[in-house]
Amino acid sequence: MRLAFQGEPGAYSEAAALQFRPDAHLVPCPAFEDVFEAVERGGATCGVLPIENSIGGSIHRNYDLLLAHDLRIVAETELPVVHSLVALPGTTLDEVRTIYSHPQALAQCDRFLRSRKGVEVVATYDTAGSARLIHDRGLSGTAAIASERAATVFGLEVLARGIQDFADNITRFLVVGRGGAAEEIQKGTTPNKTTLVFSLPNEPGALFKALSVFALRGIDLTKLESRPIPGRPWEYLFYADLNVGQQEYRCGRALTHLAEFATSLRSLGSYVGFVRSTLGDAVPTAGDRA
Amino acid sequence: MRLAFQGEPGAYSEAAALQFRPDAHLVPCPAFEDVFEAVERGGATCGVLPIENSIGGSIHRNYDLLLAHDLRIVAETELPVVHSLVALPGTTLDEVRTIYSHPQALAQCDRFLRSRKGVEVVATYDTAGSARLIHDRGLSGTAAIASERAATVFGLEVLARGIQDFADNITRFLVVGRGGAAEEIQKGTTPNKTTLVFSLPNEPGALFKALSVFALRGIDLTKLESRPIPGRPWEYLFYADLNVGQQEYRCGRALTHLAEFATSLRSLGSYVGFVRSTLGDAVPTAGDRA
Repeated sequence: MRLAFQGEPGAYSEAAALQFRPDAHLVPCPAFEDVFEAVERGGATCGVLPIENSIGGSIHRNYDLLLAHDLRIVAETELPVVHSLVALPGTTLDEVRTIYSHPQALAQCDRFLRSRKGVEVVATYDTAGSARLIHDRGLSGTAAIASERAATVFGLEVLARGIQDFADNITRFLVVGRGGAAEEIQKGTTPNKTTLVFSLPNEPGALFKALSVFALRGIDLTKLESRPIPGRPWEYLFYADLNVGQQEYRCGRALTHLAEFATSLRSLGSYVGFVRSTLGDAVPTAGDRA
Repeated sequence: MRLAFQGEPGAYSEAAALQFRPDAHLVPCPAFEDVFEAVERGGATCGVLPIENSIGGSIHRNYDLLLAHDLRIVAETELPVVHSLVALPGTTLDEVRTIYSHPQALAQCDRFLRSRKGVEVVATYDTAGSARLIHDRGLSGTAAIASERAATVFGLEVLARGIQDFADNITRFLVVGRGGAAEEIQKGTTPNKTTLVFSLPNEPGALFKALSVFALRGIDLTKLESRPIPGRPWEYLFYADLNVGQQEYRCGRALTHLAEFATSLRSLGSYVGFVRSTLGDAVPTAGDRA
């Protein structure tokens, strides 16, 4: 199986892809959009995309791209995130004048960064890419926030380990594929989670009414994300994760009901995921998982 | 009145502050957090903070900071965003090899950036700051995406105007202040909008139940934003904008009702804002506005 991910070798997305399928052939892509395109054009079976971090929140770009592309969510996986400060071998912590990393990683290490007075913090496109930059350009006095594996890949040294503000830092990834991939990956499993995207008419109580089609059928929502509709200021698309597989009767009925008044409605996929109580604790359904 | 904003002179936040109070004395701050601190410590009467862009979506950092600080939302204002590509005088578009800007501005000019093949795109902390960097370091072959005013402020030339993907690109700003500032700014006006933040128990249908306290009283929601609770993976805080002033009877009743089962509930302020139908079109209440 060929799995596309965004970033350099050593990226957290690469680790998530290997966790999902340890024997996969990995296809690194420069941007999230390239992951979608690699899957659409057949260069990869599936793409592994971060969708939400337990500290930083949603990765909105990927929500927007799920809408713009015609792929299905076929699985989800979660990866604990441990950030390290990495630099050229021989560098000491006090010699570091500049720190590069992705804005989410920088935000997650806020306390550590505030303790490094006078250090310039530079936002980049990715964590492992920052490590690579330091290696490729031989940047002394410069460090990156990245995974320990990124340090190994690019011959850098770890100056500080586990520098994120919260120990309990987890990123949730979605695995996306074309229709055929869903069948292959989900063979022998029963999807227990469904992700929808919908828009609503400009009417009072519209969102309340939308949630009622699930609540009154006992279907739990584990996530509700709103995104702007470009070109229509202050109108929103809603992305909802449901704790139910689409093959279930009440899920089908709820979707039919929502379609009666939603201005748009699309299922992004039904898959084996982590079952949680509404807005609550994770109950991994280990038996069903790869 | 002293108004704090994040960024350099020429930043969109500066323009929003001047639109709110043309005669204000402006206090530029390096980061959003510094805006909150300037107001808390009395260095500024109010702070003007971007909270949402009609294309890029919410500025989540400011939602998080509203929770972390004890300030009130006292007003809101909206600013149309027109991005330009600016560089040292004499630079031609084809000479530009590197483009700096804030990630939101970069995302909003995606189509333009994709048309500039081979150009390196670098994410920075702000738009006007990128213009300043080019001026201060005399960076040739480099351009910034910023406002036309930023070009004027830093002696740069506009190479391309209105390069954002969508013409209808608006940023909504919140004005925050201490208790006393609210009284002064809101004198003679009647707040028609209220912003809340709340969390819910891990129970099926919890969000549906929360929205019911508004929907069943005919109170419209114009925005619902969820943010992670750090250290408690996959639990969320909800920020809700209501089309009702807190002094109204049904608003008070709805808050009392929500407090019966919410695990936390706080009003971030009640203010004169743009009234919209739920998830819908803006109806500026011009008569009430400064």
